[in-house]
Amino acid sequence: MSLPDEFHEIAKRVSNWGRWGAADETGTLNLITGAVVRSAAACVTSGRRVPLALPLRLDGVQTGLIPGRVNPLHTMVAVNLEMFGPGTVATSDDMVVMGLQAATHWDGLGHVSHAGRIYNGRPASSVTAHGRAAFSGLEKAGPVVSRGVLLDVARARGVERLPGGHAVTPEDLSAAEELAGLTIAAGDIVLVRTGQIQRYLAGDKDGYAHPSPGLSIRTPEWFHARDVAAVANDTLTFEIIPPEIEGLWLGVHALHLVEMGMLQGQNWNLEQLSRVCAEERRYSFLLAATPEPFVGAVGAPVAPVAVF
Amino acid sequence: MSLPDEFHEIAKRVSNWGRWGAADETGTLNLITGAVVRSAAACVTSGRRVPLALPLRLDGVQTGLIPGRVNPLHTMVAVNLEMFGPGTVATSDDMVVMGLQAATHWDGLGHVSHAGRIYNGRPASSVTAHGRAAFSGLEKAGPVVSRGVLLDVARARGVERLPGGHAVTPEDLSAAEELAGLTIAAGDIVLVRTGQIQRYLAGDKDGYAHPSPGLSIRTPEWFHARDVAAVANDTLTFEIIPPEIEGLWLGVHALHLVEMGMLQGQNWNLEQLSRVCAEERRYSFLLAATPEPFVGAVGAPVAPVAVF
Amino acid sequence: MSLPDEFHEIAKRVSNWGRWGAADETGTLNLITGAVVRSAAACVTSGRRVPLALPLRLDGVQTGLIPGRVNPLHTMVAVNLEMFGPGTVATSDDMVVMGLQAATHWDGLGHVSHAGRIYNGRPASSVTAHGRAAFSGLEKAGPVVSRGVLLDVARARGVERLPGGHAVTPEDLSAAEELAGLTIAAGDIVLVRTGQIQRYLAGDKDGYAHPSPGLSIRTPEWFHARDVAAVANDTLTFEIIPPEIEGLWLGVHALHLVEMGMLQGQNWNLEQLSRVCAEERRYSFLLAATPEPFVGAVGAPVAPVAVF
Amino acid sequence: MSLPDEFHEIAKRVSNWGRWGAADETGTLNLITGAVVRSAAACVTSGRRVPLALPLRLDGVQTGLIPGRVNPLHTMVAVNLEMFGPGTVATSDDMVVMGLQAATHWDGLGHVSHAGRIYNGRPASSVTAHGRAAFSGLEKAGPVVSRGVLLDVARARGVERLPGGHAVTPEDLSAAEELAGLTIAAGDIVLVRTGQIQRYLAGDKDGYAHPSPGLSIRTPEWFHARDVAAVANDTLTFEIIPPEIEGLWLGVHALHLVEMGMLQGQNWNLEQLSRVCAEERRYSFLLAATPEPFVGAVGAPVAPVAVF
Repeated sequence: MSLPDEFHEIAKRVSNWGRWGAADETGTLNLITGAVVRSAAACVTSGRRVPLALPLRLDGVQTGLIPGRVNPLHTMVAVNLEMFGPGTVATSDDMVVMGLQAATHWDGLGHVSHAGRIYNGRPASSVTAHGRAAFSGLEKAGPVVSRGVLLDVARARGVERLPGGHAVTPEDLSAAEELAGLTIAAGDIVLVRTGQIQRYLAGDKDGYAHPSPGLSIRTPEWFHARDVAAVANDTLTFEIIPPEIEGLWLGVHALHLVEMGMLQGQNWNLEQLSRVCAEERRYSFLLAATPEPFVGAVGAPVAPVAVF
Repeated sequence: MSLPDEFHEIAKRVSNWGRWGAADETGTLNLITGAVVRSAAACVTSGRRVPLALPLRLDGVQTGLIPGRVNPLHTMVAVNLEMFGPGTVATSDDMVVMGLQAATHWDGLGHVSHAGRIYNGRPASSVTAHGRAAFSGLEKAGPVVSRGVLLDVARARGVERLPGGHAVTPEDLSAAEELAGLTIAAGDIVLVRTGQIQRYLAGDKDGYAHPSPGLSIRTPEWFHARDVAAVANDTLTFEIIPPEIEGLWLGVHALHLVEMGMLQGQNWNLEQLSRVCAEERRYSFLLAATPEPFVGAVGAPVAPVAVF
Repeated sequence: MSLPDEFHEIAKRVSNWGRWGAADETGTLNLITGAVVRSAAACVTSGRRVPLALPLRLDGVQTGLIPGRVNPLHTMVAVNLEMFGPGTVATSDDMVVMGLQAATHWDGLGHVSHAGRIYNGRPASSVTAHGRAAFSGLEKAGPVVSRGVLLDVARARGVERLPGGHAVTPEDLSAAEELAGLTIAAGDIVLVRTGQIQRYLAGDKDGYAHPSPGLSIRTPEWFHARDVAAVANDTLTFEIIPPEIEGLWLGVHALHLVEMGMLQGQNWNLEQLSRVCAEERRYSFLLAATPEPFVGAVGAPVAPVAVF
Repeated sequence: MSLPDEFHEIAKRVSNWGRWGAADETGTLNLITGAVVRSAAACVTSGRRVPLALPLRLDGVQTGLIPGRVNPLHTMVAVNLEMFGPGTVATSDDMVVMGLQAATHWDGLGHVSHAGRIYNGRPASSVTAHGRAAFSGLEKAGPVVSRGVLLDVARARGVERLPGGHAVTPEDLSAAEELAGLTIAAGDIVLVRTGQIQRYLAGDKDGYAHPSPGLSIRTPEWFHARDVAAVANDTLTFEIIPPEIEGLWLGVHALHLVEMGMLQGQNWNLEQLSRVCAEERRYSFLLAATPEPFVGAVGAPVAPVAVF
């Protein structure tokens, strides 16, 4: 079974292989220049801060559907331990076991491969059990701070949340951009709101997982044309479930991560952000969203914050 | 064995219990107002970004000295798995096991107790094995974005790094503030550089652990007087090892976390930041340092970034 | 809310506190003497071996109902790694994260407490987050090898499996003993079959969890009168769900573990054993069932084997 | 770099590929027949039991030398939790993170490969990150109960422990067999004592790791000639360190696991067993040593017991 022709045609058009040199491991993050960061800082006029991460807990978004992507299991290794004797300062300590893509996270460029290749034409076999990702591990992303833009597709379409299976199209993105009253610029990080995470927040984990709205395979070209630095949304897998094109699973993953070398984020809670943007009547902000720098990681938790 | 009188006298002077109401769980983070955040954004003039987290790896700073505070064990649960059939997009997934205070982290307010109390007078017994911290868990910290200030004590003293056992005094902090050419303001997050982390970076983990410079028990008053929002440094435990006052272990922890309700950070890599500050001739910047929001956590990893 | 009078009356009658001295940490395992082990070996006449453990897998019996009791998450840390150079012997290595009571296991004596006490009158506070069980940790159990006896209650009642909520009574045990054609002797390890595990084996995890047959609060006296060394069954929690006496949860746990100092086992797969006993027309065998000796553990996986 | 000719010659002579059919996944465990088990049971004359597993603790034998093979990190997820209300039965629960080969364990047949093959000629690529070992996972071993024989090489050579680097030869094994006063029979499990584990027991973990005595590459033929079912010893890696033949690492692993399809065990504490055998003046016993049945595992903890 091979990927459909449509996929390969888009792939050719959006490929960034070689664009920043054969040695590049960070892809579209290269588009975040000093000027972009200054424009991000210029968005800070009220000092209001909005958190975008889900709380990390055992009762998280994972349902067991994706084996090994376990919700955070957080345990205490000491509770009020007076290790220096009775009456001394007592300490409590904790640890965690979790899938790196279990909660609010960035997908790293090594997360998917197709035709045996990852970003920049490197062999998929450079990802191994003992060494993890030899190239483009998330520790190489460095600081992710840029201008963030919310494309509130649900609001632009006048619904609370998009229906399961809905394909967010380039036209949807343009309508949301118009609602936002701005123009996406090179280096921006785009947050696409579908409203789907409301299902999880309401306690319906299975309904959150599927059916789910997601990004159409036609959207990567829209992002590519605007030289977006990264994209995140408020769904479990980023993709439309069931898939837009029968049999094409993870097509957007392959285009973003492998072809474009662009980080993508999932399980971002954009509900409060949507309300704040509507209140403040502006959809751009400084976005601080640096992944935890796990060496060789193909996914990493992030605690993103939008600053107005 | 009880804590020395000196500790109790300082504790009385720096206590913030009740200051933000009996229900408060975030302490000095309350000092980060919109105005403070705007002043932080005003620091961004070049767009240069400096990461302050250590890469997360099994070969991390922990040596086994603190049982259960294990270095990040990062493993793959899938490597190029074609889960939808041969020729389809293949995925790699990873997970981690780690102590929440194993690497670059914030101590939460529940991390230590003394005399059976944590911040705001709550019982230490509110931290439990099954429920973790019922109060002041790090998921409650919310976005941590403020003006950051580097107090480069090593540079101010003209050394590459402070010797093991050196007590950073209020006078050291004032000298570093003078070097910085600014005035610490309410809501600032202060980063105190000792240079100690060079030992770890050079491969000497044991030497990094002890002997170690750290903050004198007299410094919390200095921070309190200036209404600092949080403090981090570049050592394993934050404290002087061996302790400044014989038998008083974790005294600064108790003053910061329990009495003041102030987050403190450890294992922050301030080496590149020191060089950049010297080059840019300014020691203030926008600091984005939101902890991963583990529910009920007494510690949490953070990937702090300084933006100039 | 306190435990009902009936519980306290039974507790008094079955208590073994002090029976093997104030320092004892192993309770009824003391009943397994050399003579008992010799009688166990005498059961071996065909050499046939029957495994009683469930395979350890992520798709195990836990459903998330009991927080933190996670199914085995087994991952590879290396796959065919030629660590000594190309063409050399390659190694694969694995690790696991699991609840110690997640699969086929023994409950240790520290697993439950009531009225602030564990076995032999020790304070429940001797179990701590950092130190685990200071007394009666499963590393102290030592080798568990004895005569095993299957009490096949389901077969004795002529059903494939007992209905959910069924209370296995002393009369049920006596009927199964009669079916077995033997007399329970001091030091025997008794395996009580309800057939409930068929639900899990058929893929119905929720149905396995509840409703569930289990042992009546009247059965500990039956075991006590016969000086049984340990008891295991084929259910998730050992107990009847919903409980036999309204509001009395874990009553049998408290009697076995706290009062009698007797290990109890859960999630033992007794289906093949039932068939073999019926075929061989004998219900006693050598049972090898040593828990993994985790230091300070209140639960531990075991891979029990019956030898005929 | 390829393996030396000597290795390939021995490999040819000891290979069991195809011996139990092309579908076989358990190798020499096939040699444990009912008759062998009966002879094992016949060894039980006193009922004395000797445990051979090291206690499982964070302070275990691993030093970090083998990445990912982490000592057992055992934590409580609940401590005396009254989940059904105040005054009810309280529960404590625990979990563990550990390398499956971190402590007393069996190496599974998938643990090593050479020339792209594992036992019975299967491709090494049948071991994967997501699926683990598709063939010969340790859940397939089934009950491991047989006659055990201690070959006390240290005692036969009149030393407390063999020196680091000592190659245990076939001649050493024969001398120990003579000391034991018995003849190794088909299906026996042989325990080879070097005394090396004394170093760990005395607190010297590094000295335990290397230099270490181990089995010569000439011993697999000795085991093969006698149709031994499995072999375990009291060292960290089973092998001689530094290697007997320069550049040949894990040669015995490859012969035992890949060619013969024979489980091998490491970190077995044979010290008490040595004393008991000397006292009882017999070196054979019933050995119960069933691995924890992790599905697809290439290693698994075991709590072996010798019964006299």
